[in-house]
Amino acid sequence: MRTLHVETASSSYPVFIGEGIRKQASELLSSLNRPLTSILLITDEEVDRLYGEEMFRILEEKWSVKKVTVPSGEQAKSLEVYTRLQTEAISFHMDRSSCIIAFGGGVVGDLAGFVAATFMRGIDFIQMPTTLLAHDSAVGGKVAVNHPMGKNLIGAFYQPKAVLYDTELLHTLPQKELRSGMAEVIKHAFIYDQAFLEELLSIQALDDINSEQLNEMIYKGISIKSSVVNQDEKEEGIRAFLNFGHTLGHAVEAEYGYGQITHGDAVALGMQFALYVSEQAEGCQMDRELFTEWFKKLGYPHRIKQEVSTSVLVNRMMNDKKTRGGIIQFIVLKQIGQVADHAFSKDELENWLNKWRMEETA
Amino acid sequence: MRTLHVETASSSYPVFIGEGIRKQASELLSSLNRPLTSILLITDEEVDRLYGEEMFRILEEKWSVKKVTVPSGEQAKSLEVYTRLQTEAISFHMDRSSCIIAFGGGVVGDLAGFVAATFMRGIDFIQMPTTLLAHDSAVGGKVAVNHPMGKNLIGAFYQPKAVLYDTELLHTLPQKELRSGMAEVIKHAFIYDQAFLEELLSIQALDDINSEQLNEMIYKGISIKSSVVNQDEKEEGIRAFLNFGHTLGHAVEAEYGYGQITHGDAVALGMQFALYVSEQAEGCQMDRELFTEWFKKLGYPHRIKQEVSTSVLVNRMMNDKKTRGGIIQFIVLKQIGQVADHAFSKDELENWLNKWRMEETA
Repeated sequence: MRTLHVETASSSYPVFIGEGIRKQASELLSSLNRPLTSILLITDEEVDRLYGEEMFRILEEKWSVKKVTVPSGEQAKSLEVYTRLQTEAISFHMDRSSCIIAFGGGVVGDLAGFVAATFMRGIDFIQMPTTLLAHDSAVGGKVAVNHPMGKNLIGAFYQPKAVLYDTELLHTLPQKELRSGMAEVIKHAFIYDQAFLEELLSIQALDDINSEQLNEMIYKGISIKSSVVNQDEKEEGIRAFLNFGHTLGHAVEAEYGYGQITHGDAVALGMQFALYVSEQAEGCQMDRELFTEWFKKLGYPHRIKQEVSTSVLVNRMMNDKKTRGGIIQFIVLKQIGQVADHAFSKDELENWLNKWRMEETA
Repeated sequence: MRTLHVETASSSYPVFIGEGIRKQASELLSSLNRPLTSILLITDEEVDRLYGEEMFRILEEKWSVKKVTVPSGEQAKSLEVYTRLQTEAISFHMDRSSCIIAFGGGVVGDLAGFVAATFMRGIDFIQMPTTLLAHDSAVGGKVAVNHPMGKNLIGAFYQPKAVLYDTELLHTLPQKELRSGMAEVIKHAFIYDQAFLEELLSIQALDDINSEQLNEMIYKGISIKSSVVNQDEKEEGIRAFLNFGHTLGHAVEAEYGYGQITHGDAVALGMQFALYVSEQAEGCQMDRELFTEWFKKLGYPHRIKQEVSTSVLVNRMMNDKKTRGGIIQFIVLKQIGQVADHAFSKDELENWLNKWRMEETA
C-alpha cells in the first residue's frame, strides 16, 4: 500500500492506494482519529452487485452501517436522488459524527460527496473509488449534482477525510471504463509531466497494462492532481488547467447525451482539439500526428459525429462554468508538460473548432 | 454608518450598519473589489412589496440585475424553492463572477445563501437583512433549507462577502417581528455580556426602543456573534453556545408548526427553560423571577401550550443536530454572561422539562 497526502487550504487528508485494501477499511478509517457513530455506505447497482455485500460486512463488524444503492450512470446525479439520499440519512438518524462512504465511480463520489457536504451543513465523507476514472474525481473535493440545464451546476468544494483506493476492484472494470479513466491519466501527463507522457506513449494497447503499471499511473495521476489542488483549491487560478480537454469534452458529452459516450472518450476528443489549438494558436511545438495516431490506437474516438453542429457545441462551451462575461478561458499547452490559458471569444472558438473538424474529416 | 469586521478561519468580511445605507449599495458593493458581472436579487413577497422595486432600481444603475421573489415565511426554505432559484440563476446566465443578494429576513438569507453556496460550487453572496432577527442569522455563514423531517437539515457553512444592514428598514417591522429579533439580542447578552444584559433589562416595553438603541443593540449583538464565529466557524466547539435557548426553542417551533410561533418567541421559551436548568442543575446564581417577569413584560410567552406533550418535545430535541450518540449537549449558564454545555441523556432532559413545566403552571 502506498500513501499520498493531499494538502489544501481548508484541510489535509491521506490517499491510500493498494491491491485489496478494502479489507483493511476498518483499520484505515480508525487511523483517521475521527469521531464516528454510524456510516451511510452509498454505492451504485453495478458495484453493489459485485462488492456491495462484502463491503457492508467489512464495515458492519465495527460500526452501525446502512447501505443505499443508486442507479448506475450519470442519471443518478440528479436533485431527486440527492433528496432521497438526504431522507435516507435522516431516517437512519445520522448525526454530525456520522460519515458517508462513496463506494463507486465518479458519479457516486460526486453525488455522495455533495450529500455529505450539505447534510447538517457537512459531515465527514470517505471516497472509495472503484474505477480508474475516479482517480481524478475522488481527489480534490469537487462534488456536485446535475441540473437539467447543465452538468455539475449544483455543488460544492468539499474535501473527503480520506481516499481508500483498492486497485483490485479495477480488475473487473470493462475495457471501455478503463479507457475512459486512462484519458484523465493522459491529461495529467500532458499538462504537467512530459517524462510521464513518454512512458504512457509506450503503451500500445490497453490490454497490455499490468497491475503494477496501473498502480503507478494512479499514483502519478493523483500526485499531479493533488499538487494542483494544493495550490488552488477553489479553482480561482491554476486549477482551471485541469480542464484541459474538458471544455469541448463536456459539450460533446452533453450533445451526445449522457451515457452515449464515456467521459474519457469525450475528454480525449477535447484534448485532440486542444492540442490542435495549442499548435495553431499558441505555437506549441509537438508531433501532433503521433498523438492522434496513439489516441486512435488506444481506441479513442478522433472526430465528433457529423450530425452535431459546431455552433451547438460552441453555445454549450459558452455556458461552461469557466466562461466570464462572454469570454472563455480555454486551456492550451505552451509546450508538452506546460499549460496555460488562452482567452477566446465565441466567434474565435467557433472558427477554430470548424477548422479542426475540417482537418479531421479531410 | 458603523462598520464591523467578521473574521473566520475561511474568510473575512465587513458588516455595514446604518440608517438608509441601502441607497449606498452600489458604492459599498464596489468597495469590496470583487469581480461582479451580474446580480440575482432574492427577496420575499413582503419585502418586495415595500422595498423590492426601489432596491432593484438602485442596483440596476450599475449592474445587470434579476429580481426573484419567494413566498414570505418558513415554507420558502424548501428544496422546491431552492431548485427553482437554481433554475433562475442558470436561466439568467449567471457565472462564477455573479453575485446573489439576500434581501429579506432570516428565511431569505438562509435560502439565498444556500443557493449561492452551491450554485456552480459557490458564488459570492451579500446579506441585506431587513429584520431585527436577521442580525443574528446574517452573520456567521450558516445557510440551509428545511427537509420535511427537520429544520435546516440541508445546508452549508458559507460566509457572505458583506452584510449591508440598513436599519431604516426596521421601522416598518411589525412589533411581533421586533420582539422575535429582540430574543436573539437578549440571548447574546445572557451568554456573553452581563453589562449589556443590564442595559437591556431597563427596557420595559418594545415601543420604548428608539432608533439609536436599536442600532446599538444590533451592533453589540453582531459583535458578540462575530467573536464567537471567529473562534469556531464550523460549530465544532464554542459556537454551539449560541444555541442557548434553541434546543427547546426549535422543538417548540416544530411542534407548534412553523409560522404558528415566531422564532424569537420560541427561543424566549427555550431560554426560560435553560435558565431553570442552569439554576437547578448547574447551580447558576440568578434572580430568575426577575427574568421571568421581564420576559412577560416584553410580551414573550412564558409557558408551552399544554396540549404539546413533554415526551414529544424531548424526542424532537434528541433529533437535534447537536445530539451525538444519544447524548445531548444542552447549553446552560454557569453565571450570567458565562456559558457552558451540560450533557444530558434523554431521560434526564425529560425530567427537567417536566419539572419546569410543572413550576410554570403552578
